[in-house]
Amino acid sequence: MLKDRYMMAFVVYIGCNTTLAAAAAALCAYIAPAAAGSGIPEVKAYLNGIDAHSILAPSTLLVKIFGSVLGVSAGFVLGKEGPMVHTGACVASFLGQGGSRKYGLTWNWIRYFKNDLDRRDLITCGAAAGVAAAFRAPVGGVLFALEEVTSWWRSVLLWRTFSTTAVVVMVLRGLISYCRGGHCGLFGKGGLIMFDLSSRQAAYTAKDLAAVMLLGILGGLLGALFNFFVDRILRVYSLLNEKGARSKIILTATISVITSCCTFGLPWLTSCTPCPPELAGKCPTIGRSGNFKNFQCPAGHYNALASLFFNTNDDAIRNLFSAGTDREFGAATLLTFFVTVYALGVLTYGVAVPSGLFIPVILAGASFGRLTGALLGSISGLDTGLFALLDAASFLGGTMRMTVSVCVILLELTNDLHLLPLIMLVLLIAKTVADCFNRGVYEQMVRMKGLPYLEVHAEPCMRSLVAGDVVSGPLITLSSVERVGTVVETLRQTGHNGFPVIEEPPLAAAPELCGLVLRSHLLVLLQGRTFTRGRAKAGAAEVFRKLAPFDFAKAGSGKGLKVEDLDLSEEEMDMFVDLHPITNRSPYTVVENMSLAKAAVLFRGLALRHMCVVSMTQRRPPVVGILTRHDFMPQYIRGLYPNTIPR
Amino acid sequence: MLKDRYMMAFVVYIGCNTTLAAAAAALCAYIAPAAAGSGIPEVKAYLNGIDAHSILAPSTLLVKIFGSVLGVSAGFVLGKEGPMVHTGACVASFLGQGGSRKYGLTWNWIRYFKNDLDRRDLITCGAAAGVAAAFRAPVGGVLFALEEVTSWWRSVLLWRTFSTTAVVVMVLRGLISYCRGGHCGLFGKGGLIMFDLSSRQAAYTAKDLAAVMLLGILGGLLGALFNFFVDRILRVYSLLNEKGARSKIILTATISVITSCCTFGLPWLTSCTPCPPELAGKCPTIGRSGNFKNFQCPAGHYNALASLFFNTNDDAIRNLFSAGTDREFGAATLLTFFVTVYALGVLTYGVAVPSGLFIPVILAGASFGRLTGALLGSISGLDTGLFALLDAASFLGGTMRMTVSVCVILLELTNDLHLLPLIMLVLLIAKTVADCFNRGVYEQMVRMKGLPYLEVHAEPCMRSLVAGDVVSGPLITLSSVERVGTVVETLRQTGHNGFPVIEEPPLAAAPELCGLVLRSHLLVLLQGRTFTRGRAKAGAAEVFRKLAPFDFAKAGSGKGLKVEDLDLSEEEMDMFVDLHPITNRSPYTVVENMSLAKAAVLFRGLALRHMCVVSMTQRRPPVVGILTRHDFMPQYIRGLYPNTIPR
Repeated sequence: MLKDRYMMAFVVYIGCNTTLAAAAAALCAYIAPAAAGSGIPEVKAYLNGIDAHSILAPSTLLVKIFGSVLGVSAGFVLGKEGPMVHTGACVASFLGQGGSRKYGLTWNWIRYFKNDLDRRDLITCGAAAGVAAAFRAPVGGVLFALEEVTSWWRSVLLWRTFSTTAVVVMVLRGLISYCRGGHCGLFGKGGLIMFDLSSRQAAYTAKDLAAVMLLGILGGLLGALFNFFVDRILRVYSLLNEKGARSKIILTATISVITSCCTFGLPWLTSCTPCPPELAGKCPTIGRSGNFKNFQCPAGHYNALASLFFNTNDDAIRNLFSAGTDREFGAATLLTFFVTVYALGVLTYGVAVPSGLFIPVILAGASFGRLTGALLGSISGLDTGLFALLDAASFLGGTMRMTVSVCVILLELTNDLHLLPLIMLVLLIAKTVADCFNRGVYEQMVRMKGLPYLEVHAEPCMRSLVAGDVVSGPLITLSSVERVGTVVETLRQTGHNGFPVIEEPPLAAAPELCGLVLRSHLLVLLQGRTFTRGRAKAGAAEVFRKLAPFDFAKAGSGKGLKVEDLDLSEEEMDMFVDLHPITNRSPYTVVENMSLAKAAVLFRGLALRHMCVVSMTQRRPPVVGILTRHDFMPQYIRGLYPNTIPR
Repeated sequence: MLKDRYMMAFVVYIGCNTTLAAAAAALCAYIAPAAAGSGIPEVKAYLNGIDAHSILAPSTLLVKIFGSVLGVSAGFVLGKEGPMVHTGACVASFLGQGGSRKYGLTWNWIRYFKNDLDRRDLITCGAAAGVAAAFRAPVGGVLFALEEVTSWWRSVLLWRTFSTTAVVVMVLRGLISYCRGGHCGLFGKGGLIMFDLSSRQAAYTAKDLAAVMLLGILGGLLGALFNFFVDRILRVYSLLNEKGARSKIILTATISVITSCCTFGLPWLTSCTPCPPELAGKCPTIGRSGNFKNFQCPAGHYNALASLFFNTNDDAIRNLFSAGTDREFGAATLLTFFVTVYALGVLTYGVAVPSGLFIPVILAGASFGRLTGALLGSISGLDTGLFALLDAASFLGGTMRMTVSVCVILLELTNDLHLLPLIMLVLLIAKTVADCFNRGVYEQMVRMKGLPYLEVHAEPCMRSLVAGDVVSGPLITLSSVERVGTVVETLRQTGHNGFPVIEEPPLAAAPELCGLVLRSHLLVLLQGRTFTRGRAKAGAAEVFRKLAPFDFAKAGSGKGLKVEDLDLSEEEMDMFVDLHPITNRSPYTVVENMSLAKAAVLFRGLALRHMCVVSMTQRRPPVVGILTRHDFMPQYIRGLYPNTIPR
């Protein structure tokens, strides 16, 4: 560039970007498809109880880290915050299951997390740590985990996430003070507070408030529109991505070329601005960081648009938020930048690269805010930098529909508590406006991925149904002392994870619900081979002589025994196994004429995986069916009762 | 004082204080005993589902406001923050039930809140608004409500409390800018951020961290000790208070005299300090506000202890937090102040006056912190004002055991995000240390008041019991079509609020659980007089021709029909009433051999009031009993099974 070989520079630029982008896409496409995208919807789904292995697998972790580094380097309009949340959750999952047996990294001393509840808590803490590290916002991390990520909140979780982020921030602070010498690149720039604005005056009048409310409404509209576009684009992409790994890479490379063309081409359209005389030494800047990029301009001039595009995202945001720099960026520059970032943000989210949404949204919001500020300058006395901050807040509120956490994260980013009332106001308005149109972007994503996410509120169609209406298909039960062959056959033929156990004559006077037994426990019990010749109780002592209670603990996700691993002889298949010791004798139950909506509240409220439906009359067997997560999915219910008019 | 008539001044001072104190105590003792104390434990209990009328009655509201004003004016060592939380909750309750019929203030348009869930949400918002107003900390208010006050948290609640506190802070800001002219007394001083410290440098080394950790440990110990003393003192006071209103007033007056003697007497023991020469105009100060009180000292001198005692609490805290004023207060002054405030704080909490704990705890913590800072000055380079802030945080953490909310409240009070890592660290350590000894002060208070509070965790003794073990006494059931006389008799003879309804032959082949009916609904139905001559179903249409569904809505707390209000003739008593239309046909149920601990999780998790225990065998009636809140109380269970060894 300095030697005016622009075409050459463009070819090198586009070549580097596309190569990096293709590498990131290849990593995602071939090794861990689950690592693509933000990762927040996946973590949200996991914490809702969807135990898909790939979401938090070690391979996902590795691809997420390197893919995110490559993706950001490729100059895409994407952030690293979402991937950091996913990374935090993956690390937590990795530690919680005691390492990875597959990669030869195991610690057996972490036995505490061998159950769903504690593992979920740990992963919540991991997600909080991710946000805390990404924004250097410990309290914001706690609130983000609570507001957006978890489905079940307990008071003890608040305290646990808080401890995690406290450790994160101490470590961060140590690293920043270590890096202040400059030997870690750009890390450490800005200190613990990334965009410190605390010197700003915050006096505002009623007129300013009206302007701020307008910002909130505009941000809400923009956010809702953004979600709509993202949804459409993702639908198109998913058709392309289904064709295989190669088409994913081609798509990613195409978007990368478009991005490069925009960022390199658009600055040519803007005129050069002469450097402000007071900044003679700093303008134009040469180097990775700095506000005034020379680009194609003559000496002593800078290209405003290039200063925004060819800067680190952090610096671009800092520039947009900065006060007293009304003249630095013209309205045309800001408008071009806003449109480009908005469009590229929509296009980029969904390619097979780890990509966060925070940075594009903040960038687009901030540039739009400055633009609005310039237009409203006549009626409002607020600084345009302040407009940028407020509109970033309102756009965040409009897309993600978070309130407290965005508010606290922005405060921790900017260190200006005087702005709190304005930020709160703008967030409230933006969320209210956007909620009229569609859902938050993460919720939308969870739905689009087809994950069986349990919503807080029961669907209206559930109110006119009872629990007995949705249990369908033949119910598979086991007797409390069952033939080994029957158990193995049952496990082979069905994929169910829970089976009701019925106490049958002669052990009981009449068939009676004994409890619920889990597939994983059955497999461990069968592996232990405590069988009897006749149909008789073996007793718990017998079983636990061979197996320790810890053998029944939940295995790491994706691990654990499978039916095919069992190797039982013909003779053993004809023996009997006593299920009493492993039966959960206190399953949560509902009666069959329980309203389905209330059953859904119970199911979600207690974070269940199985719920027994018991019969009311004595002429039928004691258990009518088992409700699982899928029985509460609206599409399943609509399939069963297509004519149910939602009230 | 200015004329050296010290004895006279003392008499006037003590007289005023005691009169004010006695007036506050009289208000509390005669009009609304529930208004005494902080009020946070009561709000906590209400939001846990304890629907005691007096907690949020309009009379409590009035006494709380005026009592708190009188109590603060009387010079007690108490805060106005706890009462403000209670006030906020009372106002919310008042609005939520559509005004008060008793005082002739009613609005019938608020029909939205005629159920437990929405009313609880509204009151949570009220409590958040209280904190937001007290500390001018909107986000802190939201977090306080979530961390300390509510028992059930939903994501929508976060958003609702956030909107409430946003409105609070906008109103506050408007009032402050209106009051800046000085025509509202001291209100508005300090602006939205009460103790702005943002100019402070926050560079710290490993040595400083060690000092901070020590502060955390000390704060935790002090906090645990404080809770222990408060508990003991309250036990003694409750014996005295039982003797009647007069003894309450005498107790309050006595504590007031002690407080006055301490605050007036102790400054005599300290020597006078010459005013710093650079503050010639400001020292000594005359007037309500200001840092340097002359007291008995000669001109040009000030009395350091009097400057702390005879100042508004806000100013005293601001003095203690202020930086670069190491010489202003000597170690002896600080020690005397700390001991006095600590002791008086313990003594005052529990007298019949609305009293908050925040201010005494912050004052004691800050003075102790400055003292520690002075002692540790040689090894730590931190400012003593910073020590004061950190120790206030650690003492708050040690007494109240809150983490995120205290952290955010302190940030919003001081506007210094650079201190965040240190505050988080200190809070974590203090809470961990204090949790080894006893519970948080509010939980302790709820227990001591004997309120049936449902804990998050099931008691260990519940794990070895099943649901059927604790349902005792004869079960009272109603038939689905019941004689009016029987219903009235049942309502008269028992105080139960829920009755299982059994479908009996000839309406069903065998006795079958039909659902659950509430006392309040039964009363409304009887009042409606839709009776039949024979035992036959009347149908819902018949009932709802006379009664609108809204008639069954939950009445304002303490209102609603009573059995005595019914006026039925002999003939009507012999008729039948169909309970089907008002029966909740989907009650939550557990089987009788369900683990009691799991039943407790269900009961609390879904915020229930009644839970049916259904039988497993067919030879017994379908319902074995009803579980209510009281069946889960540890003392009740221990009464039933005194020999159960807690595992």
